[in-house]
Amino acid sequence: MARSDGREVNQLRKVTVTRSFLKFAEGSCLIELGNTKVVCSASVEETVPSFLKGSGNGWVTAEYGMLPRSCKSRIPRNKDSGRTYEIQRLVGRSLRAVTDMTALGERTIWLDCDVLQGDGGTRTASITGSFIALAEALGKIKSAGLIPAIPIRDFVAATSVGVVDKTVLLDLAYEEDSKADVDMNVVMTSKGEFIEIQGTAERMTFSKTAMDGMLELAGKGIKQLIDMQRSVLRDVL
Amino acid sequence: MARSDGREVNQLRKVTVTRSFLKFAEGSCLIELGNTKVVCSASVEETVPSFLKGSGNGWVTAEYGMLPRSCKSRIPRNKDSGRTYEIQRLVGRSLRAVTDMTALGERTIWLDCDVLQGDGGTRTASITGSFIALAEALGKIKSAGLIPAIPIRDFVAATSVGVVDKTVLLDLAYEEDSKADVDMNVVMTSKGEFIEIQGTAERMTFSKTAMDGMLELAGKGIKQLIDMQRSVLRDVL
Amino acid sequence: MARSDGREVNQLRKVTVTRSFLKFAEGSCLIELGNTKVVCSASVEETVPSFLKGSGNGWVTAEYGMLPRSCKSRIPRNKDSGRTYEIQRLVGRSLRAVTDMTALGERTIWLDCDVLQGDGGTRTASITGSFIALAEALGKIKSAGLIPAIPIRDFVAATSVGVVDKTVLLDLAYEEDSKADVDMNVVMTSKGEFIEIQGTAERMTFSKTAMDGMLELAGKGIKQLIDMQRSVLRDVL
Amino acid sequence: MARSDGREVNQLRKVTVTRSFLKFAEGSCLIELGNTKVVCSASVEETVPSFLKGSGNGWVTAEYGMLPRSCKSRIPRNKDSGRTYEIQRLVGRSLRAVTDMTALGERTIWLDCDVLQGDGGTRTASITGSFIALAEALGKIKSAGLIPAIPIRDFVAATSVGVVDKTVLLDLAYEEDSKADVDMNVVMTSKGEFIEIQGTAERMTFSKTAMDGMLELAGKGIKQLIDMQRSVLRDVL
Amino acid sequence: MARSDGREVNQLRKVTVTRSFLKFAEGSCLIELGNTKVVCSASVEETVPSFLKGSGNGWVTAEYGMLPRSCKSRIPRNKDSGRTYEIQRLVGRSLRAVTDMTALGERTIWLDCDVLQGDGGTRTASITGSFIALAEALGKIKSAGLIPAIPIRDFVAATSVGVVDKTVLLDLAYEEDSKADVDMNVVMTSKGEFIEIQGTAERMTFSKTAMDGMLELAGKGIKQLIDMQRSVLRDVL
Amino acid sequence: MARSDGREVNQLRKVTVTRSFLKFAEGSCLIELGNTKVVCSASVEETVPSFLKGSGNGWVTAEYGMLPRSCKSRIPRNKDSGRTYEIQRLVGRSLRAVTDMTALGERTIWLDCDVLQGDGGTRTASITGSFIALAEALGKIKSAGLIPAIPIRDFVAATSVGVVDKTVLLDLAYEEDSKADVDMNVVMTSKGEFIEIQGTAERMTFSKTAMDGMLELAGKGIKQLIDMQRSVLRDVL
Repeated sequence: MARSDGREVNQLRKVTVTRSFLKFAEGSCLIELGNTKVVCSASVEETVPSFLKGSGNGWVTAEYGMLPRSCKSRIPRNKDSGRTYEIQRLVGRSLRAVTDMTALGERTIWLDCDVLQGDGGTRTASITGSFIALAEALGKIKSAGLIPAIPIRDFVAATSVGVVDKTVLLDLAYEEDSKADVDMNVVMTSKGEFIEIQGTAERMTFSKTAMDGMLELAGKGIKQLIDMQRSVLRDVL
Repeated sequence: MARSDGREVNQLRKVTVTRSFLKFAEGSCLIELGNTKVVCSASVEETVPSFLKGSGNGWVTAEYGMLPRSCKSRIPRNKDSGRTYEIQRLVGRSLRAVTDMTALGERTIWLDCDVLQGDGGTRTASITGSFIALAEALGKIKSAGLIPAIPIRDFVAATSVGVVDKTVLLDLAYEEDSKADVDMNVVMTSKGEFIEIQGTAERMTFSKTAMDGMLELAGKGIKQLIDMQRSVLRDVL
Repeated sequence: MARSDGREVNQLRKVTVTRSFLKFAEGSCLIELGNTKVVCSASVEETVPSFLKGSGNGWVTAEYGMLPRSCKSRIPRNKDSGRTYEIQRLVGRSLRAVTDMTALGERTIWLDCDVLQGDGGTRTASITGSFIALAEALGKIKSAGLIPAIPIRDFVAATSVGVVDKTVLLDLAYEEDSKADVDMNVVMTSKGEFIEIQGTAERMTFSKTAMDGMLELAGKGIKQLIDMQRSVLRDVL
Repeated sequence: MARSDGREVNQLRKVTVTRSFLKFAEGSCLIELGNTKVVCSASVEETVPSFLKGSGNGWVTAEYGMLPRSCKSRIPRNKDSGRTYEIQRLVGRSLRAVTDMTALGERTIWLDCDVLQGDGGTRTASITGSFIALAEALGKIKSAGLIPAIPIRDFVAATSVGVVDKTVLLDLAYEEDSKADVDMNVVMTSKGEFIEIQGTAERMTFSKTAMDGMLELAGKGIKQLIDMQRSVLRDVL
Repeated sequence: MARSDGREVNQLRKVTVTRSFLKFAEGSCLIELGNTKVVCSASVEETVPSFLKGSGNGWVTAEYGMLPRSCKSRIPRNKDSGRTYEIQRLVGRSLRAVTDMTALGERTIWLDCDVLQGDGGTRTASITGSFIALAEALGKIKSAGLIPAIPIRDFVAATSVGVVDKTVLLDLAYEEDSKADVDMNVVMTSKGEFIEIQGTAERMTFSKTAMDGMLELAGKGIKQLIDMQRSVLRDVL
Repeated sequence: MARSDGREVNQLRKVTVTRSFLKFAEGSCLIELGNTKVVCSASVEETVPSFLKGSGNGWVTAEYGMLPRSCKSRIPRNKDSGRTYEIQRLVGRSLRAVTDMTALGERTIWLDCDVLQGDGGTRTASITGSFIALAEALGKIKSAGLIPAIPIRDFVAATSVGVVDKTVLLDLAYEEDSKADVDMNVVMTSKGEFIEIQGTAERMTFSKTAMDGMLELAGKGIKQLIDMQRSVLRDVL
């Protein structure tokens, strides 16, 4: 099966990361995954939500948005859909899973993922890019002497896999995603362990065998993304 | 490991279903899963969302809510959280996956899942119970001559599995869920195929092997739930 | 005049109360009045609204909601109408009228009335049922030693009366209510004193004589409801 | 008992009405009841709510608001409380009760009651004043040839009565209202028939005898208000 | 060019001010500018927004609203438009510019401008009238000994000028405003200095020469308005 | 006076424009003005607001937003302030002033201005950049044969001028803006005519002479901005 952008079935789109994309944020990057472009920023706030006050632990949370004209047709501004909530909760959980909240101390890191252009994979790009923004911000507060070490336990990145016309594809672009029968988002660490798996049958069901194939392919893609993160964050982690 | 309610690690909580629980709904049931109690109703509306107008296809959608005092502490009324959106989208997708939208015709089935009492597993109980309400409602419009057959392709039910103190447990109650290191919700058909898998590492990551064990256990639980559905819906499906 | 459900004009619908209907609430009941079914819960909160802080007095307040498919046609979720506010204010006032706020101390009792099924009389059932939930909750905090006695001055219950086809009917079902020319909700104590009267001419006006007849009939119905409350709360009050 | 403004217990406050207070409205007045000042306007809209489309019947509805500094302390703008909904529903019902909806035809009359200054009795002043605005607006559309006669069946006015320090008082000012043990709003026609009665025990309950006394006093006050309306609307009704 | 109300091109509409229009506000007036009628009130609050806490400085802020039937067609209640925000921010800035915040001390003056009737120029009438309400309120707290002197540095008033059919007009009524090619609102002190200029080309652009002509005319109108303020506030400033 | 970024008092910040910045929008650019970065997009919708239906005329409207971390401290997402409304109304008016709505035909152009990074001048950058996005979008629909010519009457650009420490500065950066005594935004055409002037005294008033000086300086800056636009849009206009 030929993919519309000429990729192999097991090939990621071209990934580019511009670190420190926003001058005022403690950490930030622009992550480009083919035509998908997401600005990720990490903001440090010296307070925690009320349920953590006095616990000595910190918090990491995420928000997600799309520019009105990030997609083929304009979407109204400030209309949070269920999809928005679903994505920002996923991003937040994924990054909390690799952060040592006790070592972070009573502060909150806000991760903002804003989609400038969306062509599929905005939630996985948000996770992969937010990790970079988070590490950059933690590096900055470490430099400022607020924490003795960067409280991150492992790298984390994400990609999607899906079944289109009975073929398993890695890193679906929007066109592919919209005709996929099964769509799976996978979040993994550098050790190949899972943080989150979300697999959905859109039009048909899927077997355990199919799932195993998808997870293997996702694992290969995530390995490449983490290699990229490691290279980009060489000075920090 | 002893479970607080005395169950075996691979044992579901007691499930009870009261069909036609609501007099005015086309389909409804009260599903009780231990102390978790959810009212599921299916409402038939002779119209479809605008994106389906003229397509000849129907739509199935779900909403989820909790009574203010369904839980240990009172929750404010009408405050939809991100969790609410996440759950109702999951329920909607799961039931759309087994419904033949063309055979349904241009009408919408609204599934309302309202938690009277929540003790863990409200989203999986919502899926398992909504299937019963949906089948009942479709049976009613078939009887009314609006559709020639019930447009359902397969049974669908859901359960949770999780890792607590390194032990894999089936169908987590609230106490167990809140100390789980990994939590997975699985939605399956009667043929053992997956419709949705959502696995989340809350405190640690999980390996492929761990996941395989969890999925196998979930499959056994779901089989029992579908047996129950089959028995309860004997007159309809 | 024959009533659609075969009742006499001066006959209440069958009333059933299930106490402690919700496991986690301090007080609760399911009250069934014919086909009308309302879950009433009482939640104790160890704080008061700001206008009472430091006064030594407590507060009792109510909220009211309907499940989306409690009625003949589905109603959208979370859309509080003016009717909702009107009802919850009435329930709150009625129960505050029999509670000794000083003896209650600086705590709030939240009464939640959620209609599972609505066939007329949901506001009067909410008052009658909330009294039971309130008493149960106060019994619980008395047992816990937080208050020396149950700070309730009298029983309170409510019913509706109305004029349909020139006949005065007790406890209107939905069908009757929708064709009533006059509709009156009456809230009374066990001593036959009034707490609230709300009489509305829907299509015609009504005379003092008509009102007197309606109030007398309502008084008889409320007496029966209070007998029922007394029996159900034997262990508490 | 001496009233703070020197009135007799059975005396209304001074009432003044300025007709056609707003230049652009079809009907309007400023009603002053002692220090209470309410602008009532009636706007004619040549359409009806969807539930009346094609029925041939019209609709009358009311909205109520308070200027931020109408009272002793400033109230935030645009915060509709339950009280607001309760009042505007009462005003709407009261005026619908005397309007012939079929003779009105498929059009809506919006009644807006805006409190410039509030010193008790704003809801009863709103009803009494809205009747004048309504009549003026209907007179205008009759003059324009849209309706052959003014579709009003009877005059309607309202007042409050209450028990303060065991004395029954007519037309309570704010100070009196805030210490009343019982508070009753009565809406009546020129024939002395009731349209609405809302009696509330704020601190104690009340007997049938007490209620009868209050209703008689209210009837006397409303008779004077309707005499005033008749005089003010001489050219219209 | 003849103006519809017979005015000269350089003539203001008749201005009338009723001081202390609202009994409960610390300062208030009704300002009438032809058919435009605005109630302005000043409320004193003994607190400041959080960004000023501990600064020793006070705050002046404004809100603006229109009665639903202030205009030719009814406008829905409580729908703040962008225009509302634009106007209330302009009023607030204009009055802050002449108030000595340090001398005011840590308190807030809320200015509420509510349009009873709108026939053009509501924002300029709001500024001119709010100055009077502000001065009255400051006079009251000075009398109460809270401040030693009235912390106002200069008078401030506003008017509009515009180009209609190539003629420059002062103080545009609604009809004129809606056909103006250029519309300018000017806020000035008694010394003829500017506080705010907002000029907008609605249909064509305007030259520097045109602007100079408009500003000169506006200056003359504002001079008259400040003379009126001075006369009305004789006892205060 | 030395400016913090070393500029002359009459010098604009460096301006860079990246055309077609967003792949899916009909027109778009990234405009960078020193550290201020705004994405402007123009979306064509083949419909008009209801007040224009059937008029044969088109519409141009603008919306404005800021990424949560565009500034020194994070701002909550989706909280439209009065400032937001003020800016988007200004952008919309400015671009409507140079568009021939009849030649545009019954379609709407949505201009979205999203601030990636804000360092002063975001509203003037939004106007200058939106003009480019608008022209690009109109060029595209002209190429598609929907309109015979580009319905733009003139170029439009904007800049700010202000008084800081008694010196008139062109194009204020955030630091300068926050200490300015007077702040003026000027919108002009290529012929040097005004479309909008908004001058505000923040701390002191300003004279006619001061204003004239500011307008002259603004005119020089805008001339350079329009030269830039002309060069960037060479292929379109």
